[in-house]
Amino acid sequence: MPIDSIASSSHTRPVMRLLGALLGGFALAMLVPLAASLVLHEGLWPQYLASMLLCLAVGLGVFLRLRHDRRELQPSHGILLVAAVWLVLPLFAAVPFMLVSARLESLDISFTHAYFEAVSGLTTTGSTVLSGLDALPVSLNIWRTFMQWIGGMGILILAVAILPMLGVGGSQLFKAEIAGPVKDTRLTPRIAQTASGLWVVYVLMSLACFLAYWAGGMLPLDALMHMFTTVSLGGSSPHEASFGYFESPLLELIAIFFMMVASCNFALYFVALRKRSLRGFWKDLEVRATLATLVAGGLLAALILWLKGSYSVLDSLRFGIFNAISMATTTGYATTDFLLWPLFVPLLMLLLSGFATSAGSTGGGVKMVRVLILVQQGTRELVQLVHPRAVKPVRLGQTIVENRIIFSVLAFILFYWLTIMVLGMALVLSDLDLITAFSAVIASLHCVGPGLGMVGPASTYADLNTFQTWVCTLAMLLGRLEILSFMALLLPSFWRR
Amino acid sequence: MPIDSIASSSHTRPVMRLLGALLGGFALAMLVPLAASLVLHEGLWPQYLASMLLCLAVGLGVFLRLRHDRRELQPSHGILLVAAVWLVLPLFAAVPFMLVSARLESLDISFTHAYFEAVSGLTTTGSTVLSGLDALPVSLNIWRTFMQWIGGMGILILAVAILPMLGVGGSQLFKAEIAGPVKDTRLTPRIAQTASGLWVVYVLMSLACFLAYWAGGMLPLDALMHMFTTVSLGGSSPHEASFGYFESPLLELIAIFFMMVASCNFALYFVALRKRSLRGFWKDLEVRATLATLVAGGLLAALILWLKGSYSVLDSLRFGIFNAISMATTTGYATTDFLLWPLFVPLLMLLLSGFATSAGSTGGGVKMVRVLILVQQGTRELVQLVHPRAVKPVRLGQTIVENRIIFSVLAFILFYWLTIMVLGMALVLSDLDLITAFSAVIASLHCVGPGLGMVGPASTYADLNTFQTWVCTLAMLLGRLEILSFMALLLPSFWRR
Ligand SMILES: [K+]
Ligand SMILES: [K+]
Repeated sequence: MPIDSIASSSHTRPVMRLLGALLGGFALAMLVPLAASLVLHEGLWPQYLASMLLCLAVGLGVFLRLRHDRRELQPSHGILLVAAVWLVLPLFAAVPFMLVSARLESLDISFTHAYFEAVSGLTTTGSTVLSGLDALPVSLNIWRTFMQWIGGMGILILAVAILPMLGVGGSQLFKAEIAGPVKDTRLTPRIAQTASGLWVVYVLMSLACFLAYWAGGMLPLDALMHMFTTVSLGGSSPHEASFGYFESPLLELIAIFFMMVASCNFALYFVALRKRSLRGFWKDLEVRATLATLVAGGLLAALILWLKGSYSVLDSLRFGIFNAISMATTTGYATTDFLLWPLFVPLLMLLLSGFATSAGSTGGGVKMVRVLILVQQGTRELVQLVHPRAVKPVRLGQTIVENRIIFSVLAFILFYWLTIMVLGMALVLSDLDLITAFSAVIASLHCVGPGLGMVGPASTYADLNTFQTWVCTLAMLLGRLEILSFMALLLPSFWRR
Repeated sequence: MPIDSIASSSHTRPVMRLLGALLGGFALAMLVPLAASLVLHEGLWPQYLASMLLCLAVGLGVFLRLRHDRRELQPSHGILLVAAVWLVLPLFAAVPFMLVSARLESLDISFTHAYFEAVSGLTTTGSTVLSGLDALPVSLNIWRTFMQWIGGMGILILAVAILPMLGVGGSQLFKAEIAGPVKDTRLTPRIAQTASGLWVVYVLMSLACFLAYWAGGMLPLDALMHMFTTVSLGGSSPHEASFGYFESPLLELIAIFFMMVASCNFALYFVALRKRSLRGFWKDLEVRATLATLVAGGLLAALILWLKGSYSVLDSLRFGIFNAISMATTTGYATTDFLLWPLFVPLLMLLLSGFATSAGSTGGGVKMVRVLILVQQGTRELVQLVHPRAVKPVRLGQTIVENRIIFSVLAFILFYWLTIMVLGMALVLSDLDLITAFSAVIASLHCVGPGLGMVGPASTYADLNTFQTWVCTLAMLLGRLEILSFMALLLPSFWRR
């Protein structure tokens, strides 16, 4: 279908209008690196200003052209909106990389790489194709990390306000009453209402994290940039050595704390804040399962490192727990090159990244709630094999989960698996080795960042060729598009509605 | 639960009685290597005789002790029966290996290896831990290959007569009317009736395959042994170079034909024979999908070999199609060391082995019928995402598949995936490399035989340590136990019934 007819159809207009408005807002985000460049006298402010004006012009242009359209945004527009935002925003987020690269002799960033960086930032994946991070202009590192903070906020709104209305992969379950039950089913007021609620939680958590890092010994700029990428579970660092740069057990403890905090459902924090009680938080099955999985995963990693003789007891605990929790929460900070460890441990960490975060957090993967349903559904099948007449509903807390939702969850997980297979095989066909191919796809799809092989924690994604880079970009986007919504876009009947 | 109380409970007696009878019958199978040893003057007949007498004595002993028990075997006994047969029969099938090894200086087969060989034979996996196959006593090679032929027959009876009654992973779907609708729900007459029907088909196919191999240029003994492992999709060969030993395109074509024939539902052949019409055969959706997948897989493998410059066009077709179809049908013959190919092709072949055979055949993997349901269920979810009120039933030919069965299929596939993960990670933890670990588990679970890495087509499973060998043995058994029935055995409530 030609772009022009998509853009002009009444089906897509309300989506385009909101997208235009979002682009206008997103342009303002570029004020941050612009200001940094001015303050630090880097001489790159014209590049950021140009990027900002371009984004503003396009966004307002689209918005103003469609401002007279009366059609309200409806839940049925959700899938298209989500896809459009994830595909278009990175285009504009990539512009500063290209302009700064054109200005500086020392940088040579292609469009492929700039778009990769932008997608990696906004999806809070945090993998990079840039080398020599410590030598990059600080403003560019600020943009890289600030993108993750913005992306994290966007993901929260998506998860709490939009996905539950779409029912992608059982995401009806993600709803949590935020700011009281939202009666309005129109999308715009709903998003606005939820956003303001989450905003408070996100900013408070960010503030606490920044202060803790600063008090823990980071320089203010480091504290700022690492706060951006901790609360968003993004994991980008302005340092080549990632979190290992600081060599500080105290800072690692702070990071572990905030990564675990950020991997829980943000809606629960909001409710806890409003009711001034953490009771609902601890009562939430998914949160308990998430935290238990993270702790158990960290301890298991430490145990195996110690048993296999990689470190002393204390160092096994320190390195095992930090890196396991960092990977499992899909943050992706590293404090050492864990590819040198016995393979079981990095594999375990990559597997955990598939489900060790809660829905309604900024984490990637299929989310713990879906695994909880899966486990119950599996047990139910076993019991029915032995007692064919047994009736054993799948529950989530007090709620009985309908069969329809269980089907969605199962389909979601199978599509997830299929995506890993297809993209992994595509990379193998392009002559990448097996470990690099599949770990790159998984680390991108789960929005973790570092994988194994050529894309491990001590290297970057720069050695991939153009085709391979685009496959990883696609994987990151699919991870955030929740795959099924992307697949739905491919259905001819979607466009015929 | 102590063995003694299992054996004496009224719950398990009818199962033990049938198991005893089966052991008695299985003992007679050892007449074949016994006769071969006598004819070939190998001097190993006492070993086979002793193995046979042991098996006969135990089998008849158990049977006679329980012969007065009046309890009929019921469908609810099916799970236990299947598990008992698969665990116990290989114990006795392993005895000839141990006795011959004790007799010959040149052989040194531990219990672990003997049991591995027996399980590999009876499950028609065909992987081996023996080296120097060409130098083995011919009678032992006959036993290795004849075990696969017997195992194949057992698997057919299991798939057509027993699994449909158990409902493991949607196996209710496997039923095909054989010898007219079987009204009797008692298990014993049902098994007997089905067995006699399948027996005719299996023997006729075996005869045709033997004659074709012989006419194609094999020596009679080679033709016999390769017939044993072709119609059973077992893939054991008495030659170190596997099917490549013959270097004959004609024989390869014959093998391709019979592997494809044997990967279809045998019940359909029986019906075709009775009705003297192949119409029902071609009308079967699963058979068409299986054959189309095999042809497409073979051609894709050939295409990639040609594109990547591994061979000329003709050799790409010859080697690509044979090895791909051999792996995809879970046979596991090789005509070359395909690990030297671009990795995509052997990976593709291993993936295909997961589903490119029909239920009711001797193939491994999850079976095509389950994939057909999966694909329809996945499409249904996508359509419902876009059109929430759409109703689109999952069909198999004329039949609408119930939700309950779809759930079973989905659970089955997820348990399959979980099994691969858990066993693969166990092998990684035992310091096996990633490719060897996971390919060994997959090749064993799918009952293919050769994997990648250290267990590729040009090597054996002999380099694995004891723990790793047992993991692969377990994987082969789980593949034939359809995993869920094994898991059901682990439920405490199974034993409390
Ligand atoms: K990340
Ligand atoms: K096989």
